Amino acid sequence: MGSGGKVKAAAGARGALLLALLAGLCALFRGCGAEDSAMENIVTEKKAEESHRQDSADLLIFIMLLTLTILTIWLFKHRRFRFLHETGLAMIYGLLVGVVLRYGIHVPRDINNVTMSCHVNSSPATLLVNVSGKFYEYTLKGEISANEINDVQDNEMLRKVTFDPEVFFNILLPPIIFHAGYSLKRRHFFRNMGSILAYAFVGTVVSCFIIGLLMYGCVTLMKQIGQLGGDFFFTDCLFFGAIVSATDPVTVLAIFNELQVDFDLYALLFGESVLNDAVAVVLSSSIVAYQPEGDNSHTFEAMALLKSFGIFLGVFSGSFALGVATGVVTALVTKFTKLRDFQLLETALFFLMSWSTFLLAEACGFTGVVAVLFCGITQAHYTFNNLSPESQDRTKQLFELLNFLAENFIFSYMGLTLFTFQNHVFNPIFIVGAFLAIFLGRAANIYPLSFLLNLGRRNKISSNFQHMMMFAGLRGAMTFALSIRDTATYARQMMFSTTLLVVFFTVWVCGGGTTQMLSCQHIRVGVDTDQDSSIVLDGTERRSTKQESAWLFRIWYNFDHNYLKPILTHSGPPLTATLPACCGPLARCLTSPQAYENEGQLKDDDSDLILNDGDINLTYGDITVSTDATGVRTSGQPVGGVNFDEALDRELAFGDHELVIRGTRLVLPMDDSEPPLPRNPHHLRQL
Amino acid sequence: MGSGGKVKAAAGARGALLLALLAGLCALFRGCGAEDSAMENIVTEKKAEESHRQDSADLLIFIMLLTLTILTIWLFKHRRFRFLHETGLAMIYGLLVGVVLRYGIHVPRDINNVTMSCHVNSSPATLLVNVSGKFYEYTLKGEISANEINDVQDNEMLRKVTFDPEVFFNILLPPIIFHAGYSLKRRHFFRNMGSILAYAFVGTVVSCFIIGLLMYGCVTLMKQIGQLGGDFFFTDCLFFGAIVSATDPVTVLAIFNELQVDFDLYALLFGESVLNDAVAVVLSSSIVAYQPEGDNSHTFEAMALLKSFGIFLGVFSGSFALGVATGVVTALVTKFTKLRDFQLLETALFFLMSWSTFLLAEACGFTGVVAVLFCGITQAHYTFNNLSPESQDRTKQLFELLNFLAENFIFSYMGLTLFTFQNHVFNPIFIVGAFLAIFLGRAANIYPLSFLLNLGRRNKISSNFQHMMMFAGLRGAMTFALSIRDTATYARQMMFSTTLLVVFFTVWVCGGGTTQMLSCQHIRVGVDTDQDSSIVLDGTERRSTKQESAWLFRIWYNFDHNYLKPILTHSGPPLTATLPACCGPLARCLTSPQAYENEGQLKDDDSDLILNDGDINLTYGDITVSTDATGVRTSGQPVGGVNFDEALDRELAFGDHELVIRGTRLVLPMDDSEPPLPRNPHHLRQL
Repeated sequence: MGSGGKVKAAAGARGALLLALLAGLCALFRGCGAEDSAMENIVTEKKAEESHRQDSADLLIFIMLLTLTILTIWLFKHRRFRFLHETGLAMIYGLLVGVVLRYGIHVPRDINNVTMSCHVNSSPATLLVNVSGKFYEYTLKGEISANEINDVQDNEMLRKVTFDPEVFFNILLPPIIFHAGYSLKRRHFFRNMGSILAYAFVGTVVSCFIIGLLMYGCVTLMKQIGQLGGDFFFTDCLFFGAIVSATDPVTVLAIFNELQVDFDLYALLFGESVLNDAVAVVLSSSIVAYQPEGDNSHTFEAMALLKSFGIFLGVFSGSFALGVATGVVTALVTKFTKLRDFQLLETALFFLMSWSTFLLAEACGFTGVVAVLFCGITQAHYTFNNLSPESQDRTKQLFELLNFLAENFIFSYMGLTLFTFQNHVFNPIFIVGAFLAIFLGRAANIYPLSFLLNLGRRNKISSNFQHMMMFAGLRGAMTFALSIRDTATYARQMMFSTTLLVVFFTVWVCGGGTTQMLSCQHIRVGVDTDQDSSIVLDGTERRSTKQESAWLFRIWYNFDHNYLKPILTHSGPPLTATLPACCGPLARCLTSPQAYENEGQLKDDDSDLILNDGDINLTYGDITVSTDATGVRTSGQPVGGVNFDEALDRELAFGDHELVIRGTRLVLPMDDSEPPLPRNPHHLRQL
Repeated sequence: MGSGGKVKAAAGARGALLLALLAGLCALFRGCGAEDSAMENIVTEKKAEESHRQDSADLLIFIMLLTLTILTIWLFKHRRFRFLHETGLAMIYGLLVGVVLRYGIHVPRDINNVTMSCHVNSSPATLLVNVSGKFYEYTLKGEISANEINDVQDNEMLRKVTFDPEVFFNILLPPIIFHAGYSLKRRHFFRNMGSILAYAFVGTVVSCFIIGLLMYGCVTLMKQIGQLGGDFFFTDCLFFGAIVSATDPVTVLAIFNELQVDFDLYALLFGESVLNDAVAVVLSSSIVAYQPEGDNSHTFEAMALLKSFGIFLGVFSGSFALGVATGVVTALVTKFTKLRDFQLLETALFFLMSWSTFLLAEACGFTGVVAVLFCGITQAHYTFNNLSPESQDRTKQLFELLNFLAENFIFSYMGLTLFTFQNHVFNPIFIVGAFLAIFLGRAANIYPLSFLLNLGRRNKISSNFQHMMMFAGLRGAMTFALSIRDTATYARQMMFSTTLLVVFFTVWVCGGGTTQMLSCQHIRVGVDTDQDSSIVLDGTERRSTKQESAWLFRIWYNFDHNYLKPILTHSGPPLTATLPACCGPLARCLTSPQAYENEGQLKDDDSDLILNDGDINLTYGDITVSTDATGVRTSGQPVGGVNFDEALDRELAFGDHELVIRGTRLVLPMDDSEPPLPRNPHHLRQL
């Protein structure tokens, strides 16, 4: 929103401003008024109370809807019914309620609410109205098109259930996106980072422009055969391309998890979907910001394009930096205080700091959602290691719950809005064109990029993986939130209606067909993490891993291992060993006592493996023993960054998840806050 | 609010109505406007964006404030500094920020926001304004008193941080109250139930009327010496009495917990404070509803009094019934589905059902806060037993976190509002009178009632306990929320200002002096739960316990044990054994398979003790063995309700917390979701 998104609304009421995220909750309780508005009008009071009751009842319907969804999901999971995911189900229930609200309920016209006209010569944010000597304060809500004036009352019921689109962006999306970042499977993510970045950045931009161009052709056609009822500019087409380029394969990934599909495929899909959400948000706001000098000309202009590009880069990097910065601050705070002794405080701090990222980004004019994503990743990579085991559990569970509730809420609202939204523009040509464009856009993203990436990858992305990625290009919460954000113009309304259909189709058809597609593409399922690890333990596989990780990644890894991890967490080699001698005092000050202890031990928290500190005798398997020894010796060397290839290799091989040495189980895994695998949840408890 | 509370506000914006609890969050993001308001005004857009940024920044200040509070609390806890509780600290930080906002920041007058007047002859909720052919929709916010009209802009900054009082009631209080109910230490609560109910109901009403009468005297005095600047009726005095009768000894209880003060004293204080919140809410709304026939006459009238009394009973029992009903429904759902296999679903369901209690009560015109309290108690008593261990942890931690955040938020807002609230009326006479009245009111509650209760109690409430209870009558979140809810009249403004001072004084002075008071009153600290239990194991003590539990409680206990627990949970005797034979099929249908299994075992979930199902050999201590045998034999008898005295006795003796038999530790305790004791947090994990 800060990022140039079209805020189409009025300045709004003044009373409950600060703290309004909380204060705002009260919008439910229409009793909005500052303390100083001494209104004794009993009629108004009764009306407000009535309205409050009505709101509670309406919200109750939604809570019941979610409860029903939960129970049905349980039934489906219980019966191992995989054709309909919870999000698809939430949509169906939403649809049903939408039908009932639209056709089943008729609200009697409330004469108390009749509006009246008043002629003034401008539209200020606040209006004082003099009613027989008493002054009432009014706040601007928005413009009403002339033909809707008589309609205002009739639509009351439907407007009630059509709620502020900014809610999605500012309340429901952040926990979803944060959870995605926080639960990123880091091992597989880093192993495939190059490919993921390519899909997310290049792929999304390609997809956006392909879809934009195709839609522009479609729109031109419509204009020529007289099917277009309003303006539809090229920028609108590009905007549409941007919003439908945000994939959300939550349904597919849930099934992947359940069936334990190949982890690289999982990582590619998950990583791409997480990052391309961020790209799509910033991209769409940059497109909106494209404004050639001559107002409303919507023509091509190099300067404006350059400006848009600048906005894209600025907003993206700014949000990235902010997200990482708050993550780093949280890591430092949790490292240098003994907050871990008080889990409640620790969890609360973690929650507040993560939330503040969002606010900070919005306050600075960046994109909160993007900042929150990178904050989540940073928290998972650094802060998580500093938390007490209880807080690790707590924070994961908290965000898991928030994510679950927000996601199901959005999807059930999607179903609802198909019937309750009042400005739908369904245009068959546009819809068919959009489906085609989306298909082609996804294809133009996946296949050429995979071909190019395979040139550099040792561990090729096979063609059945490519088909699966193509198929898994579902559209979900982000696409919906972006499209409902602004439905003021004809073009946007048509986009919104079409987007809804795209989401429905992809979630139900592609989501429901995942199992069939997997078996049809002969993608192996039931891959065990342990097995996966032990395969990589193989000599040849290790080499390929090494090959795959590019020089850029190696530099980053060494920097992370030598400097960031030791500074931000208790793990890694002591800074006194890695920093140049001149920084001695600083290094001593930043290094935690544990780091020195670690030095003498076969302990490498860096790869998110915690060796048991107890008195067990460490005997390594024949393959790993040398690697480990090397790694430790390396970290003991004065100036780092040279011989860490082996350590990196080892991290890539073992990752942060599970390490099982044949025979003895020596290493207790840190849980990687990944989506629930059918593992023993009591693992962590033993730590 | 539904309960007749004075909703002094306008009907508010219509766009984001349903779902508004979520939708409302967007009040932060002033982008409030329905989809159909196609406003293209770029100035307005810029203004909205600017306002959104400002709101984010303002909220950020608050988040930072909370973060700072958390860090300082940690420091205090770390250094075992007990004179200042986190709530007191939050208030201090709030005060500091309030001072800065009030005196440090000057907002330049924003010419874009200048308001204008428009003369119409009524004040509708929605106003359409015709601005050169375009229609804008305005919504009523409230009345502005004539002398404030020129002030509107100047106060903008301070009004920004003064947010809707209904937020406290509808967003912040419910989690606090629910948590109180959910974490009620049931064993000690039930053991002292009679006394607690007496303090909560009789005591609160007595305190309310004493304070009301004293304040009326004070107000009459003020009127005579010309110190009163507005109306102040007797009902206002009673209202004041009701709101300051809600005690909130959170500070004291935190110290009790830390020092392990006598559990009976803890139970008395905690139970009283939890219940008297509910009583005070309903009482205050009943007083507001007291409206003699002749409008504004504020004279005594029997009918109106009777009506008020009826409202009190109706609202209280209605809220009670609703809260219990949702709790029961949740218990049934969790019992009869295998939801416990999916902890996320289970937790989400629990959360949604508990929230729906609040909405249901508000929608029905009852008091959501009260309903939520009894829902919490029911969930703890029944549903908790049906949850999987993970969900038990999760739900407790979730509500603990929400409680913590909400509480600290309220207290820091309290500090803030001392400087930012703009209609303070500090009257020295009223303030002195109020402090005196509150002291006397508390004394008139505690001492006479304790005397009367001691007549019936074997386990007397000693005089040092009485002094401690007197001293621990802090006022907190509930008092504040009730007093800020309506600050429209002069009387209410004076009450609000005075209430703030009362809260500050009690939290800082009484809260800070708890440790001194404890040692001064020679109240034993460091009481171990185990030790406490084993004392009660003594023969004489057991007798006293028996004596203490009144016949009413015994009837309830038997009913609960024989019918409710078996119906709602997996524990207790099978219904086939306790219900009359004619209900055979129903009983078979309702009894869970586990209940039959339980029958043959020495297992009594009823007392919230889980015997280890493993293969350990059960050997009981010399005292308990007979009791246990009796208990089990009793539950095996066909028609219950006769010989359960022993079982009850045993429950009262062992309670639901810890049971340690000398020598062997046989019984693994279920955590009783009580405030954190310095116990091993890994206890539960072993289950």
